[in-house]
Amino acid sequence: MERPRHQGMAKNTYMRWRLPLVCLLWEVAMIVLFGVFVRFGAEADAHWEEEKREMNLTSDIENDFYFRYPSFQDVHVMIFVGFGFLMTFLKRYGFGAVGFNFLLAAFGIQWALLMQGWFHSFKNGKILIGVENLINADFCVGSVCIAFGAILGKTSPIQLLVMTLFQVTLFSVNEYILLNLLHVKDAGGSMTIHTFGAYFGLTVTRILYRPNLEQSKDKQGSVYHSDLFAMIGTLYLWMYWPSFNSAISDHGDAQHRSAINTYCSLAACVLTTMAFSSMLQKKGKLDMVHIQNATLAGGVAVGTSAEMMLTPYGSLIVGSISGIVSTVGYVYFTPFLESRLHIQDTCGIHNLHAMPGLIGGIVGAITAAAATEDVYGKEGFVKAFDFTGVYQTRTPSIQGGFQAAGIVVSLLMAFAGGAIVGGILKLPIWGDAAAENCFEDGVYWEVPEDEESDAYHMHNPDKPASP
Amino acid sequence: MERPRHQGMAKNTYMRWRLPLVCLLWEVAMIVLFGVFVRFGAEADAHWEEEKREMNLTSDIENDFYFRYPSFQDVHVMIFVGFGFLMTFLKRYGFGAVGFNFLLAAFGIQWALLMQGWFHSFKNGKILIGVENLINADFCVGSVCIAFGAILGKTSPIQLLVMTLFQVTLFSVNEYILLNLLHVKDAGGSMTIHTFGAYFGLTVTRILYRPNLEQSKDKQGSVYHSDLFAMIGTLYLWMYWPSFNSAISDHGDAQHRSAINTYCSLAACVLTTMAFSSMLQKKGKLDMVHIQNATLAGGVAVGTSAEMMLTPYGSLIVGSISGIVSTVGYVYFTPFLESRLHIQDTCGIHNLHAMPGLIGGIVGAITAAAATEDVYGKEGFVKAFDFTGVYQTRTPSIQGGFQAAGIVVSLLMAFAGGAIVGGILKLPIWGDAAAENCFEDGVYWEVPEDEESDAYHMHNPDKPASP
Amino acid sequence: MERPRHQGMAKNTYMRWRLPLVCLLWEVAMIVLFGVFVRFGAEADAHWEEEKREMNLTSDIENDFYFRYPSFQDVHVMIFVGFGFLMTFLKRYGFGAVGFNFLLAAFGIQWALLMQGWFHSFKNGKILIGVENLINADFCVGSVCIAFGAILGKTSPIQLLVMTLFQVTLFSVNEYILLNLLHVKDAGGSMTIHTFGAYFGLTVTRILYRPNLEQSKDKQGSVYHSDLFAMIGTLYLWMYWPSFNSAISDHGDAQHRSAINTYCSLAACVLTTMAFSSMLQKKGKLDMVHIQNATLAGGVAVGTSAEMMLTPYGSLIVGSISGIVSTVGYVYFTPFLESRLHIQDTCGIHNLHAMPGLIGGIVGAITAAAATEDVYGKEGFVKAFDFTGVYQTRTPSIQGGFQAAGIVVSLLMAFAGGAIVGGILKLPIWGDAAAENCFEDGVYWEVPEDEESDAYHMHNPDKPASP
Repeated sequence: MERPRHQGMAKNTYMRWRLPLVCLLWEVAMIVLFGVFVRFGAEADAHWEEEKREMNLTSDIENDFYFRYPSFQDVHVMIFVGFGFLMTFLKRYGFGAVGFNFLLAAFGIQWALLMQGWFHSFKNGKILIGVENLINADFCVGSVCIAFGAILGKTSPIQLLVMTLFQVTLFSVNEYILLNLLHVKDAGGSMTIHTFGAYFGLTVTRILYRPNLEQSKDKQGSVYHSDLFAMIGTLYLWMYWPSFNSAISDHGDAQHRSAINTYCSLAACVLTTMAFSSMLQKKGKLDMVHIQNATLAGGVAVGTSAEMMLTPYGSLIVGSISGIVSTVGYVYFTPFLESRLHIQDTCGIHNLHAMPGLIGGIVGAITAAAATEDVYGKEGFVKAFDFTGVYQTRTPSIQGGFQAAGIVVSLLMAFAGGAIVGGILKLPIWGDAAAENCFEDGVYWEVPEDEESDAYHMHNPDKPASP
Repeated sequence: MERPRHQGMAKNTYMRWRLPLVCLLWEVAMIVLFGVFVRFGAEADAHWEEEKREMNLTSDIENDFYFRYPSFQDVHVMIFVGFGFLMTFLKRYGFGAVGFNFLLAAFGIQWALLMQGWFHSFKNGKILIGVENLINADFCVGSVCIAFGAILGKTSPIQLLVMTLFQVTLFSVNEYILLNLLHVKDAGGSMTIHTFGAYFGLTVTRILYRPNLEQSKDKQGSVYHSDLFAMIGTLYLWMYWPSFNSAISDHGDAQHRSAINTYCSLAACVLTTMAFSSMLQKKGKLDMVHIQNATLAGGVAVGTSAEMMLTPYGSLIVGSISGIVSTVGYVYFTPFLESRLHIQDTCGIHNLHAMPGLIGGIVGAITAAAATEDVYGKEGFVKAFDFTGVYQTRTPSIQGGFQAAGIVVSLLMAFAGGAIVGGILKLPIWGDAAAENCFEDGVYWEVPEDEESDAYHMHNPDKPASP
Repeated sequence: MERPRHQGMAKNTYMRWRLPLVCLLWEVAMIVLFGVFVRFGAEADAHWEEEKREMNLTSDIENDFYFRYPSFQDVHVMIFVGFGFLMTFLKRYGFGAVGFNFLLAAFGIQWALLMQGWFHSFKNGKILIGVENLINADFCVGSVCIAFGAILGKTSPIQLLVMTLFQVTLFSVNEYILLNLLHVKDAGGSMTIHTFGAYFGLTVTRILYRPNLEQSKDKQGSVYHSDLFAMIGTLYLWMYWPSFNSAISDHGDAQHRSAINTYCSLAACVLTTMAFSSMLQKKGKLDMVHIQNATLAGGVAVGTSAEMMLTPYGSLIVGSISGIVSTVGYVYFTPFLESRLHIQDTCGIHNLHAMPGLIGGIVGAITAAAATEDVYGKEGFVKAFDFTGVYQTRTPSIQGGFQAAGIVVSLLMAFAGGAIVGGILKLPIWGDAAAENCFEDGVYWEVPEDEESDAYHMHNPDKPASP
């Protein structure tokens, strides 16, 4: 399989030394930092037997592992298969979609364990980790996967690793501000994960604007089977989203409620997406792009409020609206963003994560502001919003205000952070491809011969080679 | 990508106003009905803290969420990925298989929450939902997915939504008769889900008989990769079936036992399927259609009895037989049904769900009739069959009789319901395609250019375009 | 679709009577043996209510089902989808990869339930099974799936069934020696599953050496979409490996810790694999073979030590090293093994399972030898290594020695067993294909027409047939 033609790239995409260097150096850094800082939390440590006695627990089943591990695995699937395969819709970028997502997420979770650990699990000089930390690390990386969606096909793996390094850092700072300083509730991450991740990614792709991108327009579409691969990603995201939104909620009713709300919202979202996908197309045919993406907006849009008493019908309303907004976004906003604002958003994360994320933040603020002791019960009210300690005197309407502030902070962090990181990624040292070679796996991957090549047919023992 | 040629369809498949109208109207109806009726059950409500005290529960882990949520997620995967991808085997109907399954299931679970809620979870004017309701809604929709298998490729999305509306309704009535009036046990749904769903679907497809279907015969087969996509569906159904049959069994030993019985039955089924697939083919080669479908019959056939003391070897026997029956069905019955009875059964649900469902009902009746206090223990016996209250005096043999009656009722409901619904779907207003355009995504979907088109090759940077 | 050309095979691959005979006879044997020996364990038996009282358990949640069932399902997915799809990378052997894996695993788990049951769950003449037995049966079959990787594409389904029969038997003996006689810890099976399975498979493929295999060289590669299918397998193995290594660990901290260690090791492994994949290739491009396989070595390499106090940074180190070793293996060792030692290792299991398995055994021995009461706590120390009863006086260093002995025993069992079984499989009665027909589904499967055939294009209603 000789490939004689010169690649004719204006840019140097040679990765041989740069990529290994970055990967290895960073992994060594992780090992050193983990060595200094990271230890098992009490529930994963062999001292647990003694701990159990001290905490007066009678059974091993009280270990947080059994409350959260199934949800963790669902979230894990969403990050690696969900996001990875969702992005395989491009006809010639399946390896990059699933492979680079794998790379950045595997690095990101290590760095997130450290960053989030310093902020939230730091005790006596050590970060003590358990299953909840693993979930939070996956969450943090989820915001990077979202941003990856905006720049999919236009960046080198090194750029992705650099972006991951910075975005995980900024995510953790933003999360700390929201959860600890503003005392905001955001268990499913409408603000911290989706709003932040999406506007961060959109800002980065704006900075990295490629005026000649239409040179690779023929590769920006899908083929029949790549759309089916993408549906694997879609469905796993859709099915496991109830686990995502409930994974770190309080034990008991809160986890239970989050799952139900999310289930309802997502179901409604599918119907309105289908409706608008057909309605907005002259021939009335359904568009796979909408089905693959806008059906998920319902999960994003209840990310903040799912653990609150949003109620099942409230979830249906939120899901319905977000499906509509997202589909309309794909039809009208994405072209507008590209032509007018020079925001080239490969996967349409503005429609799937940015707008629904904002909706989610707002719905969360309203739901919090509308909370009453009657609806939650006296104890449930305090527990749901953690109105204890210094927050004992917070009222629902004040909480609503802080929730709204959380949206603004996330947006500011995303814009500022995205601008800085975009600037860094624009440096001509990271090995990104020329415009005409975007959306093409051949740049960074050994690509096998095509399925149509002669070799494929010649040796079917039952069949002569097709003429 | 201009598509100049006129579609030449005799029928009007234009969906632009009809599909959005149905989707949006129904979603609004769902919102209104949920608003009036649906609330969180005690274990998902913020009042849970108080409830817990009243119920004397010491730990959040006693919340039903932790008993059933992992099984729920497995069932969820079966409905959306399992059934969706199982039906992608057709070479040009992958979008329809996975997309329409997505649409009807997302609508169906909402309507099922209401219908089943009115029958089973109605208290003081409200339907109180929890994780068990989500599972039951998925189960109910499972029966619609089964019926979809019979009419796959021959119906419009509106027809599917109409069928879903009626079938969910009838399912709930039938389920109420069986579980509440006849006091029948059917945790894995051999009767309520499989027998009912399959004979309902077969009746519908009989009514919708298309005499000229051979005009689209060339699209009724698979291609190499579509068979692999279908195997994703098969394997997820196969692997998670133990969760399906145990998802709503009693806590403790019953869930445990159901999983083991199902695991055993499915394992045996694979071997007999492979054996007969090879044996019934002149060249002795294995047929993917059998592997994709008949290997699952073992799960169907222990649906009623899995939670009973069927025993592992009993499960192996049931699984072995159902694999044989199902494979023989694909080879001999399906062509017979089509040519003689005019039942066009795209996915062969008669072999995968109808016959194994009947086997499941019968095995359940026998297993119940054979139950003794010796085998179950005094308490276990009462608990397994809920022989309490008005049923305190029921004997195993009477229970067996009622189980058998459940099969008959399910069949009658399926035939009568299927005939009526089939008649409704025959109205010429739903936008189904002409015979020559069946099994073709292009009718209802925007389909991307083919993989073989020139554009695909021209821009591989490493390679000249193939001549 | 006539297939006129004679197949020109030197060998008789006709399966029509042989395969059904083997499948049916063996399934009957399973039924008889299950009938004689296998019963439900206490936690799955209807007598559980009484048992619960005797064991002083207050809640059904204490049933082992709830501790292990989610992990069991993850392991189940790894065996059937993970291994099955990982091997679909070959362009023309997807049916065989996923279908034969399905067949051998479905048979293997039944036989493993018996074999392992006799050794470990035999009470009063009966094998009492529960969810832990199901996990162990899946584990045992995992070692057969590994061996299958070495001979993929070169063997008939009957050979695979014969190999499964013997390998499961030998696995169970080896496991008994390690766990019961040597009192070795190996929860994730670095030694029992990976080292044993891989060297067994490598020995078998050595015995079955095919000097003319280059005749089917053109089918030994992948195509674009087959590489994406394989990534489904890779990712499910990668994501669920924490469940694999923790599935049968002690309740509580041990399960929790195993999952964390494995998560960390796998994350690190991805980075070093990517680094070396790029570094070892002249053009610096990433190779899908490495990404699909070497990224998993981190899970193998902590299989023994994950439940010990390996610590997160220890896991990062082990994962990093195993990624490097495995990738280097694919580049340098695999060609060497083939050309010099005549070991034709289709999937490169030497790199993914053999070497990382050895690393895992060694790391386990060191971690055990280094254990102190200070690190584990007094109770934790005894519990972690089961230093009770006759093992009360064992010291960590002695335990380390026994761990090392476990590696040696596993290797010896693998070589001896593989040689014998390889010899049996070499008999000319099993129907394997000639060298030029290896890696070709058409030999044992009905293969649908190719996607490129004319029929595929002719009937798209929107589009004229391409000229």
